[in-house]
Amino acid sequence: MSKPGFPDLSIFEISNEFAKGGLSPVDLLDICLEQIEARDETLHAFVHLNPAARKQAVEAERALREGRSIGPLHGIPIAIKDNYLTADMPTKAGTNADIDFPMQDGAAIARLRAAGAILIGKTRMHEFAWGMETPPARNPHDETRVPGGSSGGSGAALAAGMCLAATGSDTGGSIRIPASLCGTVGFKPTFGRIGRSGIVPHSWSLDTAGPLTRCVDDAALLTDVMSGPDVADPGSSERSPSALHGASGRPPENFTIGICRNHFFEALQDDVAQSVEAMIGALTRAGARVVEFELPDLEYGLGAIFAIELASSSAYHQRSLTQGHAEDFTEDVRLLVQMGELVRATDYLQAERLRTRLGRSVAQAMQEIDVIVGPTMPVTAWTVGQREVTLAGRTESVLESAWRYTYPWNLLGLPAITLPCGKDRDGLPIGFQIAGRPFEDASVIALARIVEKFAG
Amino acid sequence: MSKPGFPDLSIFEISNEFAKGGLSPVDLLDICLEQIEARDETLHAFVHLNPAARKQAVEAERALREGRSIGPLHGIPIAIKDNYLTADMPTKAGTNADIDFPMQDGAAIARLRAAGAILIGKTRMHEFAWGMETPPARNPHDETRVPGGSSGGSGAALAAGMCLAATGSDTGGSIRIPASLCGTVGFKPTFGRIGRSGIVPHSWSLDTAGPLTRCVDDAALLTDVMSGPDVADPGSSERSPSALHGASGRPPENFTIGICRNHFFEALQDDVAQSVEAMIGALTRAGARVVEFELPDLEYGLGAIFAIELASSSAYHQRSLTQGHAEDFTEDVRLLVQMGELVRATDYLQAERLRTRLGRSVAQAMQEIDVIVGPTMPVTAWTVGQREVTLAGRTESVLESAWRYTYPWNLLGLPAITLPCGKDRDGLPIGFQIAGRPFEDASVIALARIVEKFAG
Repeated sequence: MSKPGFPDLSIFEISNEFAKGGLSPVDLLDICLEQIEARDETLHAFVHLNPAARKQAVEAERALREGRSIGPLHGIPIAIKDNYLTADMPTKAGTNADIDFPMQDGAAIARLRAAGAILIGKTRMHEFAWGMETPPARNPHDETRVPGGSSGGSGAALAAGMCLAATGSDTGGSIRIPASLCGTVGFKPTFGRIGRSGIVPHSWSLDTAGPLTRCVDDAALLTDVMSGPDVADPGSSERSPSALHGASGRPPENFTIGICRNHFFEALQDDVAQSVEAMIGALTRAGARVVEFELPDLEYGLGAIFAIELASSSAYHQRSLTQGHAEDFTEDVRLLVQMGELVRATDYLQAERLRTRLGRSVAQAMQEIDVIVGPTMPVTAWTVGQREVTLAGRTESVLESAWRYTYPWNLLGLPAITLPCGKDRDGLPIGFQIAGRPFEDASVIALARIVEKFAG
Repeated sequence: MSKPGFPDLSIFEISNEFAKGGLSPVDLLDICLEQIEARDETLHAFVHLNPAARKQAVEAERALREGRSIGPLHGIPIAIKDNYLTADMPTKAGTNADIDFPMQDGAAIARLRAAGAILIGKTRMHEFAWGMETPPARNPHDETRVPGGSSGGSGAALAAGMCLAATGSDTGGSIRIPASLCGTVGFKPTFGRIGRSGIVPHSWSLDTAGPLTRCVDDAALLTDVMSGPDVADPGSSERSPSALHGASGRPPENFTIGICRNHFFEALQDDVAQSVEAMIGALTRAGARVVEFELPDLEYGLGAIFAIELASSSAYHQRSLTQGHAEDFTEDVRLLVQMGELVRATDYLQAERLRTRLGRSVAQAMQEIDVIVGPTMPVTAWTVGQREVTLAGRTESVLESAWRYTYPWNLLGLPAITLPCGKDRDGLPIGFQIAGRPFEDASVIALARIVEKFAG
């Protein structure tokens, strides 16, 4: 997890160093700002930098000297995806259209601030979270390639060492896709765990907030901080989430790991397949029980989530469509938002019925398994401008391939994490995905800790 | 609760008489068959009579003599709405279209049989549960008037003494409307309490099964029998329902009763208002605490439920629409099913959003009140062929007025009962409606027992 400039420590360990005086918030922020200065002209990860960040770091440092730490993220520079409304920075949600978003904090931002985080800036996103490329952002591992999307700026900023963690939102894979392509950890917790008030909606029944982090420990910590009931989000769960950070570890032999051989292992790059199979082999040798199974109906899943996303997005953008703002959307996004008006309610209902059926099949399968693992994506980062990819003899759009393995866990609201498990022949990161039972985020985190150790 | 021919006893009391030999299942069935013989040529309450019913009554009688009672409905003649599939009787769901419905029992029917009920026949319903008139059925209180719908045959059969209880299904009021117009008890339990497998769907997220009965005690008993998890119904709740029958009574002074003065008391007939206000007065004098309040957004509720019903019904009837069966639907129903294809997914989503918002307002209001009471309908039974009614100076279709007070409790899935609270100047029954918190069906039943006693 070593990144340029940062010490090879988790946020929790850095906080301990802060307390001991071995590191300081200002030093840490300056490393971030140096990386931004050095690379962001090319990477385009940020759309806005917080002018108050350095002053806040100085204050955080003074507070530490006076023995006052206000929370587990005290003095930690966090980058914020630009669909999270913020009271002190403008929000554009990736659009150039003349839409005013309120200057106010939502639930997750308020929790980050209360935990002491320094919000270093707002990261670039694919317009309205409707895409997997985030132009003009680039991938820090190869600047000719995309960072993924829609939280592409968060992935690029984090991978380039411009922040210690970043927030994202995931409707069909928008946290896990950039995390996988940029080689970071990306966690989509169970639907309802993190309140979404103050996050510009894409699809109410799918959108999930979560963190992109340098290591699994940080993902657990940030999820804990961001989680909790949110009266302004009807999708927010009333269950009080159990703590993920500090939960005791769980040895590999205590896991029954499911491998869904259909869908999740179809049509992928050889290097991706090899890395993922190698990790499954390592888990097996370490004592995990592995169960292979198949799930029905997944071939209809893409149609279902697409109908739901199109309709939900158009319902949200109804005012923009009526008032003409949609004319100023990027063409790809405008087309999708306009297409959504054509989705029939009967098709929407059939999509929801498929979702119910799929959920029952997965719940059935998960009675005997703890987690489902596989590749996060069939592909590694593609070249900017590349439109298609040929996998298993079939040519498809890069966009279609990008979310094939991630979207099912949005349809079902299950917790799912991606973390690096190797690199392909071009040195590009490969992501390993772990999904769990609803509200059993702790199992996902526990296995991810093991995978992280094995990945080295 | 005295009805022609029957002893003035609840089903529970009749069962006790059975045990003592003071009454017999054959006698009871014969009273039903005599009433059917005498009046069903005019009332058209049944579409099918069970040829095996009398044999079953004879067997039930023999079993009793031998000291074997198989359950709380042993030997009790129950009429079944014709959208409940039955293994021994054909199902048509009110349509003349050439659609084959399977000959098999769903969850509720299996439970009724297991409790010993004799299914006396299938009752007439408005086609596919899409209407409030149930032609050509008539109201036993005045044969020139409608019995209501869609469970109109169940209401008419019960009110005419052709059965001891009947099943219904309620999507926007289809149990409570005929119960109110025919002067019976009608109970729509909390959504999810009674499994709906084997009931021909109207709208998956609204449909609720429940009983029409002669008294509140019977409604509690039948609901208990019919309730429970149903793996084949995704809407079925996993909560194990608490027993309603035999629950201890609750005095009026232990109730905080809510009166929602907007919507539920707007534009109604004077006689209805007077009866309902008189009952509220009686409850107040008996010590109940009464809280008046208003609910926002209800003026948009009709649009919301209509969008949901149209879309859901068309989604269910997709095959009939494609294969041309819909051409054989009655014109009013065909039009509705075809209209549903035009509902946009964006409108459906806005309807669901309103539903969420309304649910939150009601949950808020119900923090300090136990039940919400008011009239079940603004009108009493209208004349066959009557299209419009003028209330508070505004003319509306009878259909629009019919479900104004009932549909909000479908949108929100709350338990709601209707029971008689008087008669209008023409001697037509007036219904009193009580709605409760989700899964607090017991509160609704408890207050209904008090209202029943006061109504005399």
